[in-house]
Amino acid sequence: MPISQSLINEFIKIAGRENILTEEADLQSYSYDAATADLNPVIPALVAAPATKEQLGLCVKLAYENGRPITVRGSGTNLSGASIPEPGDGVVIVTNRLNRILEINETDMYAVVEPGVITAQFATAAAGRGLFYPPDPGSQSVSTLGGNVALNAGGLRGLKYGVTKDYIMGMEIFDYRGELVKTGSRTVKYVTGYNMAALMSASEGTLGVFAEIIIKLVPPPKASKAMLVVFDDINKASEAVAGIIAARIVPCTLEFLDKNTVKYIEAFTRAGLPVEAEALLLIEVDGGHVQLVEEDAEQVAQVCRKCGCANIRVASNAEEKNKIWEARRNALPALAQARPTIILEDATVPRSKIPEMVAAVNSITKKRNLEVGTFGHAGDGNLHPSILCDRRNKEEFARVEEAVDEIFDVALKLQGTLSGEHGIGQAKAKWMEKETNRATIEFSQNLRRALDPKMLFNSGKKFV
Amino acid sequence: MPISQSLINEFIKIAGRENILTEEADLQSYSYDAATADLNPVIPALVAAPATKEQLGLCVKLAYENGRPITVRGSGTNLSGASIPEPGDGVVIVTNRLNRILEINETDMYAVVEPGVITAQFATAAAGRGLFYPPDPGSQSVSTLGGNVALNAGGLRGLKYGVTKDYIMGMEIFDYRGELVKTGSRTVKYVTGYNMAALMSASEGTLGVFAEIIIKLVPPPKASKAMLVVFDDINKASEAVAGIIAARIVPCTLEFLDKNTVKYIEAFTRAGLPVEAEALLLIEVDGGHVQLVEEDAEQVAQVCRKCGCANIRVASNAEEKNKIWEARRNALPALAQARPTIILEDATVPRSKIPEMVAAVNSITKKRNLEVGTFGHAGDGNLHPSILCDRRNKEEFARVEEAVDEIFDVALKLQGTLSGEHGIGQAKAKWMEKETNRATIEFSQNLRRALDPKMLFNSGKKFV
Repeated sequence: MPISQSLINEFIKIAGRENILTEEADLQSYSYDAATADLNPVIPALVAAPATKEQLGLCVKLAYENGRPITVRGSGTNLSGASIPEPGDGVVIVTNRLNRILEINETDMYAVVEPGVITAQFATAAAGRGLFYPPDPGSQSVSTLGGNVALNAGGLRGLKYGVTKDYIMGMEIFDYRGELVKTGSRTVKYVTGYNMAALMSASEGTLGVFAEIIIKLVPPPKASKAMLVVFDDINKASEAVAGIIAARIVPCTLEFLDKNTVKYIEAFTRAGLPVEAEALLLIEVDGGHVQLVEEDAEQVAQVCRKCGCANIRVASNAEEKNKIWEARRNALPALAQARPTIILEDATVPRSKIPEMVAAVNSITKKRNLEVGTFGHAGDGNLHPSILCDRRNKEEFARVEEAVDEIFDVALKLQGTLSGEHGIGQAKAKWMEKETNRATIEFSQNLRRALDPKMLFNSGKKFV
Repeated sequence: MPISQSLINEFIKIAGRENILTEEADLQSYSYDAATADLNPVIPALVAAPATKEQLGLCVKLAYENGRPITVRGSGTNLSGASIPEPGDGVVIVTNRLNRILEINETDMYAVVEPGVITAQFATAAAGRGLFYPPDPGSQSVSTLGGNVALNAGGLRGLKYGVTKDYIMGMEIFDYRGELVKTGSRTVKYVTGYNMAALMSASEGTLGVFAEIIIKLVPPPKASKAMLVVFDDINKASEAVAGIIAARIVPCTLEFLDKNTVKYIEAFTRAGLPVEAEALLLIEVDGGHVQLVEEDAEQVAQVCRKCGCANIRVASNAEEKNKIWEARRNALPALAQARPTIILEDATVPRSKIPEMVAAVNSITKKRNLEVGTFGHAGDGNLHPSILCDRRNKEEFARVEEAVDEIFDVALKLQGTLSGEHGIGQAKAKWMEKETNRATIEFSQNLRRALDPKMLFNSGKKFV
């Protein structure tokens, strides 16, 4: 049902004329997100950009009362299609103007933010007050904290510091009536009612609209050490990952890059990566004491040598360290520009299963004659095998889809999961029942319908 | 509605005659829990003790289909009345026979357990495999892991290591139909569907029945140091707590005991505590390196000296350390035997507000001529002011209730919460709306009804 002028006027009354978009050219920009899979863009009927909590609540209420599908989005950096609008002349609520850091409490180590605050800007603001916000998703320079919570974004530091959900202390949420719901607290311990803030994490916009988020901050590490470890055999690299975990060392970061990924990153960035390597591990240890960090770094190096690494380069200063992480952050863009389509997967396994998973990804793609670049958070068991292809080539794309199916099958057989950090969205909803069962889907649907009776929040068949 | 012999026979068919209790004398034992507030025991119609997951699911299905209120309990150690059955001839399902540790995976550092495993036995089993399960609620020697999850139990190590919810990776849950729902994974990262395991934590048995729990384990600390710090002024002690947090040191434990608590513990245990002290702090620092721990301990001592402590006793060996923690663990039993009734509160504030909260508790009780012992997890902002009284003395008890009301008012004014770790149960449900609002209660009720349409799980007016 196309949107009426009178409804448009009501939105304008709430948020101001310049913050309500209805022109096709403007709406186009909100028809897609960063998902690279075979998902089609959908143009919404209206985009609203409220600037205050009150405006946000009124927008939710107005859209819901009028039966409009509601898609809330920050910067749309999610990789699973979770912020692509559903067909049905929906309303997109964009949170970019809700970008105030309302409080950073140094003494009690928390912050209160609006959902549209940019992740990296928040981390910088926290650092300026002597505090540390560890979650660092690849898109942190543009992603929003609200989006990070909705997708439970991961990042490079997940191994030691956890992911977004581990930093949510509380929230205010607009329910489907536009009523403000409060959950959690500024206290580090809290059992007053249901843990709804945790439920919101990874809910992909289907249960309510985030108005404010209370975020936990921690003291920054006092020392750190980064190294780049070169392997002439991919199996040796994946065994080193398992070996480091088995040695009970918890690096803050333990990243894996295969030969193909290194090749494309180097072509893309000229960072000086060793392109002759079959695989690289990028490792950083940090902690509260220089001596501890030195010893952990030495133990990591020992495991790598024992697993037959070819070479270890230790970053001798902050600049060298940043260069390593910058190169890693370019893995996705570097691979993405290699061929017209990149199918980026996110299947995750228990950490010790990394050698089996890496071997399986390579054999699955090889036997179908597909090009793959595998990189990711090896220390979390969370790899991103990325199949490089051309979606317009139907024959090739059929092989890609077969390969993806088989990758999921292997991940589940290894007691893993469909998605470690990218989310389900539209891209993976069809595999959900395979990992769980029918009762789980029904339980999830009951829960969802209770909090969204008209099924308008990120509506349609997505997610569950 | 009294329970029919034919329904009893169906339960017997599932779990065996010796595991179904219907005699009044047996049922008595399941009519109460460890809540010490003014809650009345309720005798259930039947107690079932299933021994397998299958039997558990069939018991849930049978009780639910027959419209019986269902209260699942482990050892009933919760302090908020959450496992007192509701009136209405309900069924209590006791999980004590579901006490198997199904898997401890040393490599991937997780365990899979049945809900009736005893907390301390589990921690010991993990330690035997070189791993650490940090949550250590006061009742750990008898409490069950299922109960710990349902109440999101805290403990002495919450400050550094977090609480039960921080160690739940996944769960299997029987829904109201007795269907098995699966959520979470053996992987450290997971965003496949709603974070239902997190929602179950602190849900107090109202959303489903836990069948299996996947628990995260961590490497144990390599060194630790404990100390007992004596203060001749309660304000100096609470300022030292705030000072330690402000110095960005994160002890694993930072406990507070006031003079009255020390007096009763010493009378109870003869542990050699300094009864002349106005307040004690019991502090332990731990970490991955001896040097780090030494430096942290020295910094803690410096803060305490700066705040004017009278004396610092460092535990010189494990035995001395254990003696300190044993004394602390006896705070509740020691206070509980002092007078006929103990009203143990759990209001929690941001950590820096501890000095204000301690002062408020003392002034609130003093002006009503009530005896109080205050102890607890000062580092978490989570104190347990315990009012010693006699419930049968109506005039006194009215003053107690006034004092409790005022304590909650102060906690909320300081941006705190009703309960840090003990739960809402029956004891605090009436204050829930004060902390949140009507919309939050309605949102919670919608959620609850969706997963329990007949409202039989820990039914009645409890919780939300």
